[in-house]
Amino acid sequence: MYSIEQLQQKLSVKLNELPIRREPSGLYEPISYTLDQGGKRIRPLLVLLSNQMFGGNIDDALPAATAIEIFHNFTLLHDDVIDQAPLRRGLETVYQKWNVNVAILSGDTMFAIAYGELSKSSPSLLPQLMEIFTKTAIEVCEGQQYDVEFEESDQVDLDTYIRMIRLKTAALLASSLKIGAMIANAPVDETDKIYDFGINMGIAFQLQDDLLDTFGDQNIFGKLTGGDIAANKKTVLFLKALEKANNPTQKKLKEYYSGNSISRESKINEVISIFEDLDVKKETELMIESYFSKALSIFNSIKVPNEKKQTLMEVFMSMLKRSK
Amino acid sequence: MYSIEQLQQKLSVKLNELPIRREPSGLYEPISYTLDQGGKRIRPLLVLLSNQMFGGNIDDALPAATAIEIFHNFTLLHDDVIDQAPLRRGLETVYQKWNVNVAILSGDTMFAIAYGELSKSSPSLLPQLMEIFTKTAIEVCEGQQYDVEFEESDQVDLDTYIRMIRLKTAALLASSLKIGAMIANAPVDETDKIYDFGINMGIAFQLQDDLLDTFGDQNIFGKLTGGDIAANKKTVLFLKALEKANNPTQKKLKEYYSGNSISRESKINEVISIFEDLDVKKETELMIESYFSKALSIFNSIKVPNEKKQTLMEVFMSMLKRSK
Repeated sequence: MYSIEQLQQKLSVKLNELPIRREPSGLYEPISYTLDQGGKRIRPLLVLLSNQMFGGNIDDALPAATAIEIFHNFTLLHDDVIDQAPLRRGLETVYQKWNVNVAILSGDTMFAIAYGELSKSSPSLLPQLMEIFTKTAIEVCEGQQYDVEFEESDQVDLDTYIRMIRLKTAALLASSLKIGAMIANAPVDETDKIYDFGINMGIAFQLQDDLLDTFGDQNIFGKLTGGDIAANKKTVLFLKALEKANNPTQKKLKEYYSGNSISRESKINEVISIFEDLDVKKETELMIESYFSKALSIFNSIKVPNEKKQTLMEVFMSMLKRSK
Repeated sequence: MYSIEQLQQKLSVKLNELPIRREPSGLYEPISYTLDQGGKRIRPLLVLLSNQMFGGNIDDALPAATAIEIFHNFTLLHDDVIDQAPLRRGLETVYQKWNVNVAILSGDTMFAIAYGELSKSSPSLLPQLMEIFTKTAIEVCEGQQYDVEFEESDQVDLDTYIRMIRLKTAALLASSLKIGAMIANAPVDETDKIYDFGINMGIAFQLQDDLLDTFGDQNIFGKLTGGDIAANKKTVLFLKALEKANNPTQKKLKEYYSGNSISRESKINEVISIFEDLDVKKETELMIESYFSKALSIFNSIKVPNEKKQTLMEVFMSMLKRSK
């Protein structure tokens, strides 16, 4: 069994070998700029860990893992245009450093390269891999669309939010796990289980991200808390609060989230105090706990010896640790 | 053998069955808006005609033909953003009717749907089909990038222009033909020939388009001539003229192409008179002739009975007829 570090090393080597140092440089430089940044490479790591857990040969899974990492980065290029995000991983986003046209066209090229890598997988598996990869790619686009509509809409509720993060975030994590398992020739009911595990885990993580952005320990979380409130982001906390609040408090909340009439600091403090009055922190923790324990119970039902499950579980635990 | 009309009918039915009437409508409406417009559907028709010429079963080629049509339309969505084109096929472009974000995200979804259709091809051929489809998709992006750089650059020459239109336009026509042939299980040297035929034909058509935009018969060509000159487009005519002109004429040409200081009408007339003095119309016709006859000689060398080649040749001839 390879360690996490060994798998990450294999991924790095593979990504460095991609034929992206070429002409026209106006097209390829933004691509290597993006892929060279690294990031956590969680998704391709999940492909490899799941593959290893089901007894696969890592080299068989590397093309699909690479495909998923390139695909994920392609979505970031286009999402950053759509969300007008100036920074990503502490560096200028591609559309900011170059321009919108470059972000569009270099992104499109990455999408094609992603499929090109995927197609280097075992020919006998290719049709099924194409099917789940494409289904997931479409879901991620749908999720991004719901997210855009969500931020523009007054009619938002928790169910819609969960559907959105399921499509935008959880689906790709779940597919990464499933694809790794498929390449290890795991039985269909097991690949379905690891997918469901990924969906529940993905939703739990996104909800936890929301929670930490407001209630996290800044020293551990690594960034200033309150950013989501300042940016009027409709997180699980905001939606739960809206659900529970009486009319005057709803009105007050919506006012805070529709403008920037008071200082950042006071707005964050006011909103947090509403959240606390309504006990939404506790309720969100229970919600996360519920997705997390559902994920765990699915994971435990997977018929693989425990020692083989260990490395994958370690990664998920380290992802969770950020909250402790 | 199916007639062109029958094949187009089959394509229409297939495109109408695509699962694109669904939620979120903000994502899918621009997709059906685009695909419902029709257009000439030349590329998928080439897939089917080539398939039929090599004795294939049309139903086997329909998924790939559909993939190519969706891919082509996806590139239009993004290109229209990049080129800031307000109209396409007489209707508002997607980014104009909705906005840039919609054009990006609906386009991305179409790209994924295109791959999804391609993957319904015969599993035994899928790895090769994925390879040529992906190679072509990347070439089209490279061609678009060269086109953008080309329009911004002062250093332009005919060779760079030919390389650009080969990537941006000819490669997809050539791949359409090759993919149709591959699905008919044609031998590799024949699929290579039909590809080379497509490249030469594609370049010839693009050059002819340039020629007709300036020197076409408006009644036959169907649009006002002189549009490229008015828009300062660096066509083969402009590049040939620059090559042949002496210094003062070069300077004059560049001046005309760098601003709009005189009326549209006079600018077009002045430039045409320079083109005529330099005999670039004749030279461009010879160039087209040369690509066209190279294409024909490759086509004639393909080992398929003449009667089977007829329908495909008809389509190319009707594409050429616009100039007569």
